[in-house]
Amino acid sequence: MFPNRLKALWAEGRPAINGWLSIASPFAAEIMAAQGFDSLTVDMQHGALDYSDLLPMLQAMRASGAVPLARVPWLEPGIIMKALDAGAQGIICPMVNSAEDAARFVSYLRYPPLGVRSFGPTRAAFAAGGDYAAQANANILAFAMIETAEGMANLDAITATPGLDGIYVGPADLSISLSGGRLAPGMDREEPEILAALQTILAACKRNGLRAGLHCGSPDYAARAIGWGFDMTTVGGDTKFLASAAGAAVAGFRRLTGGTAGTAEPGGY
Amino acid sequence: MFPNRLKALWAEGRPAINGWLSIASPFAAEIMAAQGFDSLTVDMQHGALDYSDLLPMLQAMRASGAVPLARVPWLEPGIIMKALDAGAQGIICPMVNSAEDAARFVSYLRYPPLGVRSFGPTRAAFAAGGDYAAQANANILAFAMIETAEGMANLDAITATPGLDGIYVGPADLSISLSGGRLAPGMDREEPEILAALQTILAACKRNGLRAGLHCGSPDYAARAIGWGFDMTTVGGDTKFLASAAGAAVAGFRRLTGGTAGTAEPGGY
Amino acid sequence: MFPNRLKALWAEGRPAINGWLSIASPFAAEIMAAQGFDSLTVDMQHGALDYSDLLPMLQAMRASGAVPLARVPWLEPGIIMKALDAGAQGIICPMVNSAEDAARFVSYLRYPPLGVRSFGPTRAAFAAGGDYAAQANANILAFAMIETAEGMANLDAITATPGLDGIYVGPADLSISLSGGRLAPGMDREEPEILAALQTILAACKRNGLRAGLHCGSPDYAARAIGWGFDMTTVGGDTKFLASAAGAAVAGFRRLTGGTAGTAEPGGY
Amino acid sequence: MFPNRLKALWAEGRPAINGWLSIASPFAAEIMAAQGFDSLTVDMQHGALDYSDLLPMLQAMRASGAVPLARVPWLEPGIIMKALDAGAQGIICPMVNSAEDAARFVSYLRYPPLGVRSFGPTRAAFAAGGDYAAQANANILAFAMIETAEGMANLDAITATPGLDGIYVGPADLSISLSGGRLAPGMDREEPEILAALQTILAACKRNGLRAGLHCGSPDYAARAIGWGFDMTTVGGDTKFLASAAGAAVAGFRRLTGGTAGTAEPGGY
Amino acid sequence: MFPNRLKALWAEGRPAINGWLSIASPFAAEIMAAQGFDSLTVDMQHGALDYSDLLPMLQAMRASGAVPLARVPWLEPGIIMKALDAGAQGIICPMVNSAEDAARFVSYLRYPPLGVRSFGPTRAAFAAGGDYAAQANANILAFAMIETAEGMANLDAITATPGLDGIYVGPADLSISLSGGRLAPGMDREEPEILAALQTILAACKRNGLRAGLHCGSPDYAARAIGWGFDMTTVGGDTKFLASAAGAAVAGFRRLTGGTAGTAEPGGY
Amino acid sequence: MFPNRLKALWAEGRPAINGWLSIASPFAAEIMAAQGFDSLTVDMQHGALDYSDLLPMLQAMRASGAVPLARVPWLEPGIIMKALDAGAQGIICPMVNSAEDAARFVSYLRYPPLGVRSFGPTRAAFAAGGDYAAQANANILAFAMIETAEGMANLDAITATPGLDGIYVGPADLSISLSGGRLAPGMDREEPEILAALQTILAACKRNGLRAGLHCGSPDYAARAIGWGFDMTTVGGDTKFLASAAGAAVAGFRRLTGGTAGTAEPGGY
Repeated sequence: MFPNRLKALWAEGRPAINGWLSIASPFAAEIMAAQGFDSLTVDMQHGALDYSDLLPMLQAMRASGAVPLARVPWLEPGIIMKALDAGAQGIICPMVNSAEDAARFVSYLRYPPLGVRSFGPTRAAFAAGGDYAAQANANILAFAMIETAEGMANLDAITATPGLDGIYVGPADLSISLSGGRLAPGMDREEPEILAALQTILAACKRNGLRAGLHCGSPDYAARAIGWGFDMTTVGGDTKFLASAAGAAVAGFRRLTGGTAGTAEPGGY
Repeated sequence: MFPNRLKALWAEGRPAINGWLSIASPFAAEIMAAQGFDSLTVDMQHGALDYSDLLPMLQAMRASGAVPLARVPWLEPGIIMKALDAGAQGIICPMVNSAEDAARFVSYLRYPPLGVRSFGPTRAAFAAGGDYAAQANANILAFAMIETAEGMANLDAITATPGLDGIYVGPADLSISLSGGRLAPGMDREEPEILAALQTILAACKRNGLRAGLHCGSPDYAARAIGWGFDMTTVGGDTKFLASAAGAAVAGFRRLTGGTAGTAEPGGY
Repeated sequence: MFPNRLKALWAEGRPAINGWLSIASPFAAEIMAAQGFDSLTVDMQHGALDYSDLLPMLQAMRASGAVPLARVPWLEPGIIMKALDAGAQGIICPMVNSAEDAARFVSYLRYPPLGVRSFGPTRAAFAAGGDYAAQANANILAFAMIETAEGMANLDAITATPGLDGIYVGPADLSISLSGGRLAPGMDREEPEILAALQTILAACKRNGLRAGLHCGSPDYAARAIGWGFDMTTVGGDTKFLASAAGAAVAGFRRLTGGTAGTAEPGGY
Repeated sequence: MFPNRLKALWAEGRPAINGWLSIASPFAAEIMAAQGFDSLTVDMQHGALDYSDLLPMLQAMRASGAVPLARVPWLEPGIIMKALDAGAQGIICPMVNSAEDAARFVSYLRYPPLGVRSFGPTRAAFAAGGDYAAQANANILAFAMIETAEGMANLDAITATPGLDGIYVGPADLSISLSGGRLAPGMDREEPEILAALQTILAACKRNGLRAGLHCGSPDYAARAIGWGFDMTTVGGDTKFLASAAGAAVAGFRRLTGGTAGTAEPGGY
Repeated sequence: MFPNRLKALWAEGRPAINGWLSIASPFAAEIMAAQGFDSLTVDMQHGALDYSDLLPMLQAMRASGAVPLARVPWLEPGIIMKALDAGAQGIICPMVNSAEDAARFVSYLRYPPLGVRSFGPTRAAFAAGGDYAAQANANILAFAMIETAEGMANLDAITATPGLDGIYVGPADLSISLSGGRLAPGMDREEPEILAALQTILAACKRNGLRAGLHCGSPDYAARAIGWGFDMTTVGGDTKFLASAAGAAVAGFRRLTGGTAGTAEPGGY
Repeated sequence: MFPNRLKALWAEGRPAINGWLSIASPFAAEIMAAQGFDSLTVDMQHGALDYSDLLPMLQAMRASGAVPLARVPWLEPGIIMKALDAGAQGIICPMVNSAEDAARFVSYLRYPPLGVRSFGPTRAAFAAGGDYAAQANANILAFAMIETAEGMANLDAITATPGLDGIYVGPADLSISLSGGRLAPGMDREEPEILAALQTILAACKRNGLRAGLHCGSPDYAARAIGWGFDMTTVGGDTKFLASAAGAAVAGFRRLTGGTAGTAEPGGY
């Protein structure tokens, strides 16, 4: 697994496509890992899963070439280090709102003298191959999420944090926060102020040599984001893929058979 | 839950659309249950799951209006009765090849004097509401699968089995078996001999007052099958919905960004 | 664990009280094991659980003095031997309807030359202590269920089966079967024909030196059954204990506060 | 699910009865949900369960009308937001000891501009129906626990916290803390100083328009608490219901059969 | 995964070393898969696990080169086909006692026209790569266990079964059965009658072009067996490796510190 | 379980041997518990497990005499209290770097007036026997880990913390931290500066009446540590025992059969 394939991709100037995992199922993870994503992120924050699901999902993805990442629930050292020991090769941390947040985040991912990570890569050492202790500090990716007005205000300081690898943008939270709740959540934003915020973040990343990632809801928007300069985009996740494909099949059948639409449930998100 | 909504649909002359569940995840089941299927079948045979997954999946589907069905691994009384006690309102049984198979199958689903089912609907009584003991024999659906040359040879005797509610056709196995392995497995067949077999099965069902179900791979074929007279068609399942939608997103992104295709894994089925 | 404490109790002329486990929870099992039952039966047939639940439940009960038993889903060698290897010290087998059934059942529980059980008590050897291989044949209890008209008809032959330890009576199935479906299922029967059947079974057990067990729904009926000569009675199970105590608390509160009854759900069984 | 049924009850001037879930079992939760409680709280603090149990338990309760709540282990944003995303419609937070604690707690439950909750109701959006994003801030309940001397000292400030919906009182911790460890833990207190504390809390709630909840151990005490002015009382939980009903059955049997009490284990709490 | 690496090894005249998995843990499986075994067998018969454990264990082993095999609980079509669909590349079937048993066993592993396996390799198709449907019949290994006197009596007929790939010998059961219970169970037998039986089995395998496998308890005996002509030997399993290494560490510490031996538990098997 | 057996051992002047559990398996825990360890620590920090694994593992160890301990992921009140409520009789807390850390740690383990632990020993009260509320404060062990340069600098203040029972030394982290990353991680250190640090810690423990524990990698080093004055040493854990014994068996077989070494995977840690 080491060295980190995402780093290799970026070194070649190629963008990365990331998939999102919110269903607590190693088999769903294995199916997703067979679709050609460059990386897959297990969402321990909003995903319907936690650490006890993360571990077998990482195992199920191991045989694929997809780089395993984890988004943690919050900026807390315990769960960040557990996700790394389980084999995640990078962490996406939500709600990094200040330089202090960013510095603490980075410190949890690095062994001394670069940080305070505790040593014990119980599964990671099996899964990563090679000399984990020697290679981890250089290969584990640290992605801080900018998704609040406060984070935007501290963007320069956050992106200047030593050891940080990149910024990952959550457009739903960012839109709610920047608009004071006026804008509804959602991805693939077109509002000028949000597009401007994305450009501001991108510029700060470029200035500081960071990679920039964006959470998208479609291949089209993701490709546009790559065009803007993003290095990694998420095009969607398991829940949405499943719901949309199944919903489309039902709708197609109803239409073709002239039947009335199923009234069981209105759909969800 | 009782009386069985599928029976009510059919009584109104309306076809039913069924979804297929092969991923061992209550959340995936809940997502599927929100898409408007008339029924959902937990596949304990080929699905990547077993009884310990069935139970929470049935619980997660309960709030929806979808009728919960289970396909059992084989014609075995233990697992058939467990699936019913867990709350399945119908059983699809694979490889019913003779009248004796069909009679045994029916007997496992009915309390005396109609069969030999043992009483103890531990969860079903909570989930079904009403008087389970009094209503179960009339509301539990028994679907026998015709999917072998032997089953075709015994079609008349199988479809004449008292207490049987319907035939469910598995086109992959049926094609392999009828062709002696010459035809590759798959759904949505167009070979004349398979189409003829479907018509033969349909006719036998109509003669005996049975419902006919067909496992399909697309809304289009499913709608055609309804036109032929089938009462219930499956348009797809969770693994395929997930894989196809995710794969399409990756392919779309690759195409739009001019990137080379992901080489991680070739895809699977 | 060996020698079997139930055997010791009976040798002293004392009756045994058994508890019933249908909830797939090691903690519920540990709570039940703290209540003073002489034995606890994990119900793999009608309980909402299977083998993967059995194992941690047996572990959770180990520290208590309660003898761990399992009711298997059906007369099938695979699951019977797995339950024993997991540490069950006795098996209750449903639907033993003939002498042949009974002989097959016993054979699955005994190592050669007494039977055909395969050797590999992977957890049982840890849990039972002592020399499992040498002691198992003498200490594992074989209880056959008589619960059908056919079983009653073959009662003499069944109870004469060498190696059988006892008969366990399931009154719900027995009542349905003997009455051809006229009697509703339930425990603690008072119908003369069912009481007569119980006496007939008891007499056959006594003639053949077998222990007799009865599934009851209350301490009162269980105590009466002990008075009739039964050696072991089940007074209830976890689902009923939980539902009845919770339901009584809600009803008590509603009555005391003058509130209307909760209308959420009608109750279940 | 939305709008919140507890709010509707209280708007009608009716008290609510809450049940407590400490056993990690979706089936136990489904049984409890069938008993007529107005709400059910999954106890992630002292219950023998965590997030990976919460999710299927919420799914198993969904079909009932009981409002799903969660008590979180501690005042930590990660787990509070995860419980909400899983579908809890209210959070009970332990050990809220100051106005600052209370303000932080509320902020974790509300989307901007009312708080800092991150958006991603992955399961909640499926389960709640309607427009989760628009309705969540108004429908999610925030209950702070007052259960320490420090909390009592800051009662006025805590109850004046904007956005807080109610106070939930834990009498065991409150008694230990107020007495400096002199009083033993337990519910349904009769000590004058504890009764006085309850009245003080009630009065503060009324002054600030908050709902007041009390953890009780019996319907009788719960009904008295309603009489005092509490809006919601817990009458007991799954572990106690199970243990007490099972223990009573064993004791009844022992008494009726003249047998000696089971000596296996002393009982537990 | 296809073509089967065990077949490739044997074609080169090299013996295979197999490891045994009885602990229901994907992580334990991943650890074992990192030790250099040619194949690993998940023991669904005597192992403390079942299907729901098999699946994540196979996933955890996938990235290693070890060929995944499963021993099934009994000669039953449902569980054999489920193990194959989960990704096992070979099945070891216990208690194959007659030519009829052997023929049924083989039929469950082969698609028509070679057998009656039902098509639906839900996970296997993802894990095996290539064209599963076309390659499965030629690559799935069928190992029948000879472990009873009856099996020995029918050895010639069993080994002549078309489509059978090999015989796997269970020395514990074989010794108990051949001696009528006189010999204690165990591996690495030295009794002349057992050694003779092994030679008889080997000779029958050679005559029929079958591979021969032996369950051993040590590398030394396993190496001797290879010398006799066996093609695959198991040198031990996870439970024994864990217990023996831990026990040795405790004993070493006790000896070095002069302490008395731990009295907690006598050890187990 | 109460009073704490480790305390009794130490009162007799006897050293304790501790085992380490990192595999999420109740059966592996039960096997380990049968090997004669005085205590077993479930590693919730670096172990491949979390709370939902802890509970059944503690249940599986209960029947043994081994004292159940837990290492928590981080100094966080929520998980510490949950581990205690689940039945852990002592907590090992990583990264205690200051007197304030130590005081907070102790406070989370003690009921008022000694600390702020919340009352609700849901499983612990069942498992510990006796009067948990009255005995817990005196019997629960608090072990702080000294494993950083900062912790060494604050050693005197940490070891003077009222209510702390002992120090547990993690040599891997300590070596990395003290050397600023120069020394590679590992146990059983021989560098003079590390040996000196161990002596410094030991002396501080003796001065303050604390027990001293050391994480070792072999019985030999552990016995030496006992000779230096340590009260408890860990000699190894489940992952290492399993990997080393399995790896040795494979290597032995390869050597004896002249085969080439397995090339599947390089091994891991």
